[in-house]
Amino acid sequence: MTRLVMKFGGTSVGDVERIRRVARIVAAERASRPGRGLAVVVSAMSGETDKLVKLARDAGGEGLDGGTVGGPGFDDEYDVVVSTGEQVTTGLLALALRQIGVPARSWQNWQIPVRSDAAHSKARIDAIDEKGDLARSIDAGEVAVIPGFQGVTAEGRITTLGRGGSDTSAVGVAAALKAERCDIYTDVDGVYTTDPRIVPKARRLEKISYEEMLEMASLGAKVLQTRSVELAMAQRVPVRVLSSFIEPGEASDGRNAGTIVCDEEEIVEKQIVSGVAYSRDEAKVSLIGVVDAPGVAADIFGRLADAGINVDMIVQSQSRQEGKQNIVFTCPDRDARRAQDILEAAHEKIKTDEIHIKRDVAKVSVIGIGMKSQVGVARTMFSALAAKGINIEVIATSEIKISVIIDSQYVELAVRALHTAYGLDAA
Amino acid sequence: MTRLVMKFGGTSVGDVERIRRVARIVAAERASRPGRGLAVVVSAMSGETDKLVKLARDAGGEGLDGGTVGGPGFDDEYDVVVSTGEQVTTGLLALALRQIGVPARSWQNWQIPVRSDAAHSKARIDAIDEKGDLARSIDAGEVAVIPGFQGVTAEGRITTLGRGGSDTSAVGVAAALKAERCDIYTDVDGVYTTDPRIVPKARRLEKISYEEMLEMASLGAKVLQTRSVELAMAQRVPVRVLSSFIEPGEASDGRNAGTIVCDEEEIVEKQIVSGVAYSRDEAKVSLIGVVDAPGVAADIFGRLADAGINVDMIVQSQSRQEGKQNIVFTCPDRDARRAQDILEAAHEKIKTDEIHIKRDVAKVSVIGIGMKSQVGVARTMFSALAAKGINIEVIATSEIKISVIIDSQYVELAVRALHTAYGLDAA
Repeated sequence: MTRLVMKFGGTSVGDVERIRRVARIVAAERASRPGRGLAVVVSAMSGETDKLVKLARDAGGEGLDGGTVGGPGFDDEYDVVVSTGEQVTTGLLALALRQIGVPARSWQNWQIPVRSDAAHSKARIDAIDEKGDLARSIDAGEVAVIPGFQGVTAEGRITTLGRGGSDTSAVGVAAALKAERCDIYTDVDGVYTTDPRIVPKARRLEKISYEEMLEMASLGAKVLQTRSVELAMAQRVPVRVLSSFIEPGEASDGRNAGTIVCDEEEIVEKQIVSGVAYSRDEAKVSLIGVVDAPGVAADIFGRLADAGINVDMIVQSQSRQEGKQNIVFTCPDRDARRAQDILEAAHEKIKTDEIHIKRDVAKVSVIGIGMKSQVGVARTMFSALAAKGINIEVIATSEIKISVIIDSQYVELAVRALHTAYGLDAA
Repeated sequence: MTRLVMKFGGTSVGDVERIRRVARIVAAERASRPGRGLAVVVSAMSGETDKLVKLARDAGGEGLDGGTVGGPGFDDEYDVVVSTGEQVTTGLLALALRQIGVPARSWQNWQIPVRSDAAHSKARIDAIDEKGDLARSIDAGEVAVIPGFQGVTAEGRITTLGRGGSDTSAVGVAAALKAERCDIYTDVDGVYTTDPRIVPKARRLEKISYEEMLEMASLGAKVLQTRSVELAMAQRVPVRVLSSFIEPGEASDGRNAGTIVCDEEEIVEKQIVSGVAYSRDEAKVSLIGVVDAPGVAADIFGRLADAGINVDMIVQSQSRQEGKQNIVFTCPDRDARRAQDILEAAHEKIKTDEIHIKRDVAKVSVIGIGMKSQVGVARTMFSALAAKGINIEVIATSEIKISVIIDSQYVELAVRALHTAYGLDAA
């Protein structure tokens, strides 16, 4: 049996009219390939989750966020409250499907079951212990409607996966059902070579590899949640990102093709560079004249990690002083001041001569699986930036990515220059 | 172990402030008898169920109410949507309890499980298959918070019990836990000898038997749902009805004693008459000159039952004509016209000479387990009504009840006269 999983987010199911529209999209998909089993993963109606979170916070007071007043933490009951948002959508979509003659039923996570760990409010899916009932039902032609963003612990308690977990749920269900693909309907019509708001000539990619998508997602191209791409890569589930603002039928007849995220081997024409990503609101922290002794770097980044500061690029170089080194790293701009305080408090140990923070920097990256086998990719990047007079402050590279830190006022200029330099502009 | 079940309805948990208040009431109850296990059954926040019903109706369209467009009826998914209302309250109350230092957790019906039949949207509880986890948890001092009004089928699908089912849930949980009592917190402070809006001297009863309560409930004194009283009687669970608009602690120290509904044997001082109930919006249907042959009455009431018309009192008497009889019955006023149409359409068979309908009649009843062993109870009733010049149109009696049909304009006068005649007026 072939099977397909479709996923619709909060804005796509924002009210009953939109839910009826989603029902028509599902019905068209079903009609286009009779005999193929369909499962639909849905989010809460937009706004509902916020409303439920507020109720839970009002009732739980300071006990939430890891508090333990009178009990073993509060997040288990937070999940009981918040998880109802998706449950409502599953019932409504099943009703809307039946209303247009499509057999459908909802499957709550505890009915399947979708197992997660017990990290309430930020759980991760462990396994989908589908015993065969779900698969039999969809193979018999009944559309399954499943709440995303949640699971059930081994003890049978409800969990939520934290914001954005619906994509991960959908990929997990697709893997468990051995689906041919997981279609993620969203508010964009695919993955672009770069942000079309900056580069009007940005092109939608037909295909992109999991690895590239991971780099894109973590660099701020927020189309898919990182965890869902990791899971798709591990389970080898092809994922298609496409627009939910379409007429029913456009997804199956090719008018709304979206972008397929898949294994590198399935991409015949490998681009050297597939996309240009950027992220603003970065800060550069320079530690000048750090004592050059074993364990110092571990000490510095250990302290930052303990404080929950997400350090990104790290560059270490010899200082002009004997026995000293310079360490430069980047972190989110909002954490920069705190990072400085932490490091200054540790002066006794680190003995840094100077700490400089430069705020208002941006990261620009070019990403492509093709660059593994190509030389000269970096040179093209540096030349293109130099030609526009943009100074590079930090460089970091991986197998399929080159990132640079620049002054944030040049970010649009840099992205446009690189998009052109790598031949990504649409004709 | 002793255990207590407490139940709070929709207005008692209408917003987070009220839920916090319910938490304080539960905490006071817990503090008053350490070591006693507590389970709390809750309704949806008032207004939430209506909102969810509207969403389901909008999504399901004409498929609801038994429709079968594209599927096996729609009510299963209606239940998926509507049941979330109570789930939210369970999480919020558990949070509010922990917030004031009381260990608590929610138990969804599928976690216990509370089994019901599969009559979605109007299911009945079959059995509570509590395996011991729930009992162990509450005996260890953790307050269990359980959603009322719902269950789960043998196949594991969610059901709702229909409006008012929360009382029945609470009694069912109390029976399964062998609780010493089920306290139903509501918007009145107990069961009264009659409606205090009509008789200011009405008194709250300390105790009332299940049988009397059943007669009161079905006669329109809408304090407890009939089904919950039947279940309490069958399972011999004492039920206390009391006000939720109290200060924490008043329920256990006797200031808010409410009314206990219990076995007849536990009532030492049996009143001849415990209460006077009434119900307006009745109609009297008189069939004059019905052919006097076997099976005619069965035919008449069979036709009415098939049409869903709830016939109440039935009186049959000889007609003045030879071989003819008169049949008089009452039904809800809103069904009277339809009853007439059905009977006229069956004229061929029934051969009634005349059909008269009298609308705007009311039923007034006196109820009391003491009347079983007393003579003269009926005489007191008829004398009291005659003294006020009130004409009795129909009389029906049972072991613990005498009902009369009168012109509805006299209903208040009749209730007050009977309340005084049976010595029920407060000093």
